[in-house]
Parts: sequence; C-alpha cells; structure tokens
Amino acid sequence: MLVDGKPYRGVFLGEDRHSVHVIDQTLLPHRLATRRLETLDEAVDAIARMWVRGAPLIGATAAYGMALAMRADPSDTGLALAALRLAEARPTAVNLAWAVERVRTALEAVAPPKRAAAALQAANALAEEDVAINSAIGDHGLGLIRLIASRKPAGEPVNILTHCNAGWLATVDWGTATAPIYKAVDSGVAVHVWVDETRPRNQGASLTAWELGNHGVPHTVVVDNAGGHLMARGMVDLVIVGTDRVAANGDVCNKIGTYLKALAAHDNGVPFYVAAPSPSIDFELADGSGIPIEFRGPKEVTHISGVTQDGRVETVRLTPEGSPALNPGFDVTPARLVTALITERGLAGANRAALAAMFGR
Amino acid sequence: MLVDGKPYRGVFLGEDRHSVHVIDQTLLPHRLATRRLETLDEAVDAIARMWVRGAPLIGATAAYGMALAMRADPSDTGLALAALRLAEARPTAVNLAWAVERVRTALEAVAPPKRAAAALQAANALAEEDVAINSAIGDHGLGLIRLIASRKPAGEPVNILTHCNAGWLATVDWGTATAPIYKAVDSGVAVHVWVDETRPRNQGASLTAWELGNHGVPHTVVVDNAGGHLMARGMVDLVIVGTDRVAANGDVCNKIGTYLKALAAHDNGVPFYVAAPSPSIDFELADGSGIPIEFRGPKEVTHISGVTQDGRVETVRLTPEGSPALNPGFDVTPARLVTALITERGLAGANRAALAAMFGR
Repeated sequence: MLVDGKPYRGVFLGEDRHSVHVIDQTLLPHRLATRRLETLDEAVDAIARMWVRGAPLIGATAAYGMALAMRADPSDTGLALAALRLAEARPTAVNLAWAVERVRTALEAVAPPKRAAAALQAANALAEEDVAINSAIGDHGLGLIRLIASRKPAGEPVNILTHCNAGWLATVDWGTATAPIYKAVDSGVAVHVWVDETRPRNQGASLTAWELGNHGVPHTVVVDNAGGHLMARGMVDLVIVGTDRVAANGDVCNKIGTYLKALAAHDNGVPFYVAAPSPSIDFELADGSGIPIEFRGPKEVTHISGVTQDGRVETVRLTPEGSPALNPGFDVTPARLVTALITERGLAGANRAALAAMFGR
Repeated sequence: MLVDGKPYRGVFLGEDRHSVHVIDQTLLPHRLATRRLETLDEAVDAIARMWVRGAPLIGATAAYGMALAMRADPSDTGLALAALRLAEARPTAVNLAWAVERVRTALEAVAPPKRAAAALQAANALAEEDVAINSAIGDHGLGLIRLIASRKPAGEPVNILTHCNAGWLATVDWGTATAPIYKAVDSGVAVHVWVDETRPRNQGASLTAWELGNHGVPHTVVVDNAGGHLMARGMVDLVIVGTDRVAANGDVCNKIGTYLKALAAHDNGVPFYVAAPSPSIDFELADGSGIPIEFRGPKEVTHISGVTQDGRVETVRLTPEGSPALNPGFDVTPARLVTALITERGLAGANRAALAAMFGR
C-alpha cells in the first residue's frame, strides 16, 4: 500500500533483483527505515529482532532468506543449515516453519548451482500467493462494506473498528483485516476506521494508524477501553479483526482483547467479522479451549516506548516499582460471537460444517 | 490506609490542627509528596491541578478549603467568595459543589468570628462521614468475599478484578471498590487483585497498584485487554468497580472500559459488583441513556508519562503524527449486567424497586 504516495510491500526485492528489503517495524510509527538484507544472517536477524512481524510477513521474509542463503552456499549442507536457522529465528511462528519447509522441499530436487534462482522463484511465488489471498479477502469484505454503505445516508462513512495490526505491515501486501478497508478506499467507498491502540504492544496505535494514515484512510485512535461505548452509541457499523488461528469449530484466537470487542459487538448487534486466510484455519484443532495462550514478558505491560518532544525514542516505566504484571498475549473469541469469517474463498459461517464445506475438509 | 507502614488519608490535618495536607497524586506512583495547604488559593490550586482527584476526596478537600478561607476572611463576602472559587475549581465535579454548599450553608448562621472553627468542624464531619460510608461498604463487600473464600480450597486467594482507581486515594479513606479488599486483607482473608491499568490515564497502574502495594495487598497489573481472557480461564472470582453515577434503574456510569468487563463477567458467570455510596445514586436520572459522556482531550490517548531508567518523569508520544484520537472518559454499564450494588446500607439489586426500597425514594 502507499507510504508518502509511493507503493510499498512488507518485503520486496531491490533493483538488483536479489537483495531483500524490509521495513524496520520496531522504529514505527516514529521513523520509516528500510533495511537491505544480503545474507542468511541478516534475514535471520530481521526476523529475530522483529523488524518484520506478522505471520504471513515472517513466512515470506524467511522464504527470501532461503534465497539469500542459496546465493552463498547452495550445497545440501547449506540448504539444511539455512532452513534450520530461519525456522528457529522465532520459535512460535507457525507460518515461518511452513514457509521455510516449503522452499526447502522445492529445492531438494534442484541441483545446487540452480538453487539460488529456484529459491528466489519459490519465495516470489509464496509472496504473490499471500498478496492474492489478501486481495481476495479484501474483495469479499468490500462487498460487506458496500452493503452497509448502501443503507447509510449518502456521504456518511462506514465506521469500522479494528484491533491490533492485521494490516499490510503484517503481510506482503493488503493485510487481512485491512484489505477490505483499502479496497473500499481505493474504490471510493467512504470509510472511517476506529483503531484500538492494542495494549500492551500498541500495534494499533503504532502500526495500523501509521499504515492507514499513509494510505490516506480516515481513522481515529482510541484506547482499548473505548470500543464498547462507541458501539453502544451507534458509532461502529462493523468490526473486522485478523486472527492468529481459527479452530475447526470457528473459535478465533487473536490478540488479547479481541474477545471483549466481540462481546460488545454481540451486545449491540454490530456485525463482528474475522479476516481469516485459509492457512490460519487449523482443522486439527477441535475448538479454542485447547489453544495454549502465550504469556509474554511483564515489561511490555510495565514499560512503554514513545518519542519525546525533542524527537528521542524513550522507554518509560508506568507502574510502581514492585508491582508485578501478567501479560497474556492472546485470547479466544467463541464462534458464537463471530458473525462470519472472511476467507479468500468468501464468507464462511464460524462453524464446523460451513468451514468443512468451504475447504473440503 | 498504609503507606510504608504509616496510616494515611486522602486529606488530613497537620499537627497544628488547621493546615490541610494532601498527597500530590500527579506524582504517583513514581514519587510520594504531601502538600501543605494554608490558604484558600492553595486549596483551589490543589483541586484544579488534580493533586487530589476522585469525587469524595475533592469534596472533602474543598470543605477543608472553606475552613482555610474562614481563617483569613470570615466575613460574609469572604464566605461567598470562598464558596464560589472552590466550587469552580473543577467545573464538572458534583461532589465538589455539594460539599462547598453544605459548609457554606452551615456557616451562614454563624457569627464571623466563630466561622473558622465551625468550618473546620463541618469539614471534619464531612470527611468522617465519607470514611464511615466507605467502611460500611467495605463490611458488606467483605461478606461477599468471605462467602467466595469459603467455597475455595483453603489457602487459595479470592481473585478480584478492579478497574480504574476507586481506592482510598479517591476518597478520605478505605476507597469504595477497594474497601472490601482492605477489610479482607486486614481480617486475614487471602485475596489477590487484578488491577486493570485503565488507559488512557492509567489510574489503575499508577494509583490502585500503588495503594494496594503500599498496604501489602497482593496484586498484579494487567492491560485492559486482558480481563476477558482471565475470566474465561477461571482466574477471576468477582469484579468490584466504583462508579461516578448510578441511575435510578441501576445503570452504572463509570470509567471507560467498565462496560467491557461487565460483559465479560456476565459471559463467564463471574459476579460483577459496583461499590456505590448512596450520594452517587441519582434518583432523578431514569436510566443511563441520558448520561452525557465527557470527551476529554486526545493527548491523553496519544501521549503518556512515565519514569525513565535514570529517574526522570518524561512524556512520550505513542501515535503517528497526524493520527487523530478520540477520548470518551466514561461508559454506561446496563443494570442487567450488574450483580448488585454494594452500598453503605448493604447489597442492593441494580433495579429501580430495590434501590427505591433501600433508600426510601
């Protein structure tokens, strides 16, 4: 999507057609800096330091990391080592292991001298697939937004609430939850986005607001506490969030706090949609009760970073010394609170039968 | 309650029995500093600068401010002027106008030379009433906590979630929502408190955590997004929050985000209690729909203050430049989500009949 009028992707090739470029997302929203990756080490670093984050983007970056590795050492040992190092760059990311394994398998049958080119081709294909999936989610979601727009007085924007960052910064392009929003803006449908700041890591305030603003999408940042009130007062037409994992019955695991917004949407008759690319649907998982919830470090709660008046990025402590903090990273929204999943194949009810029928499982 | 083992109140007299002492709460949790107020001007300032906040504490401080004013100028003009200036120190605080008017009325019939002593007496009475109301709320709430404790395995603490600061720092002593918690701890009932940080002003992380920690109450700070997950996983036994205003039908206006926690409590069968001193019940207000919700400045959302590693208090911007923010200060929790109100007269159902019967309205 656009940044300062220039189209960007989460990961892209340089003009030399082999160097890999990513945005250092740890500096957003205060500074835009792209990083050029030339080696396996640099690709591993970009993932481990969270310059790139978001499951699809991590996967695509790792795939390009395989291509960088093959330029330096396309031997069988080099291939095995690169796959191992990249897969371990972030231990919990499922897409990462999947993407690395996909490229590794594709290269096994290729003679070493041709592996660099084949890896680049495989990475490009994987990236383009992500873009196509998100674009299709965007098209299906756009239909929903258009329908709501048609029922509103002319010129009144459709108010969409989103939580966390399921935007293009988390993918190669379009994002998942944001794809319908960008499609709407690009086709002239008036929208306005309520951006949950999404404590503790504030991906909404720092990433979603940044990418929406740069693409020219009208938006307003709110604290996570505000969404219920906005819905109760008729200020939200629909909610669209992303997901880390959907269970076979439609239960949705997503960033902590999603469940609270789903409850408020349900209580106020506001449709609650989950943008769910099919790779995020786990048909092996019967329901959400079995999803282990990651507890992250307490410092994300007790401390926060921002930019000072004189432009320095500074970290400050918010809590009293000695007060402990607990930091669950995700929660599970029961399928009964989900109006529908927006997948690349279309809208699916958040239930076993609908999902199984749509994906032939 | 205790700070460093020493009993404190939100407002108290010095050893000279006339100077008024408050804590500069804008410095908490990073620094404890009490301020000595000697004049009307200083009392007005303490309220206007939010050294003291919380409706009951503002009211009590204003009452003491009347006593300070009467020491300098007990004339009728002096009385009228003091009442006017104090009542306008924070325009929206209902308790403030009520407390000032109460002291002013009591002094009208008193001869000027005796007004300073009478004002001090009136302020003391008002402060002691606040303490008595909160203590009674604490006793009634303690009954609820004991009941839950009796059903839990021995030694397991009762887990209480609270939102914002309805603690002793918002009152003269005990607090409202915290009174049952302090009573429990003081009587040896094991409790543990989940403290919602309560964005945007973070009164939970900065005030509630501080006062609980200082009184030796086991507690853990969580982001506002976490409560739904904690309840879904059985980690919360009950919720106790305060209130700014209760409508005649039991709808509860409280800090933004309270409604979301009430929804989660309801969805998980967790009792949701509101500590409501009778002065906060507005029998003239039919229901919550008519409560005007204050929108505060966006800077509370876009910026935050904390302490740096080298001990400086610093304000940092969290959002991208150019991203607007909206900042509703309160929300309304419908009575149907409230298990009961804890008043100084006992538990009352959150409905018109129960409230009218208990308070004879």
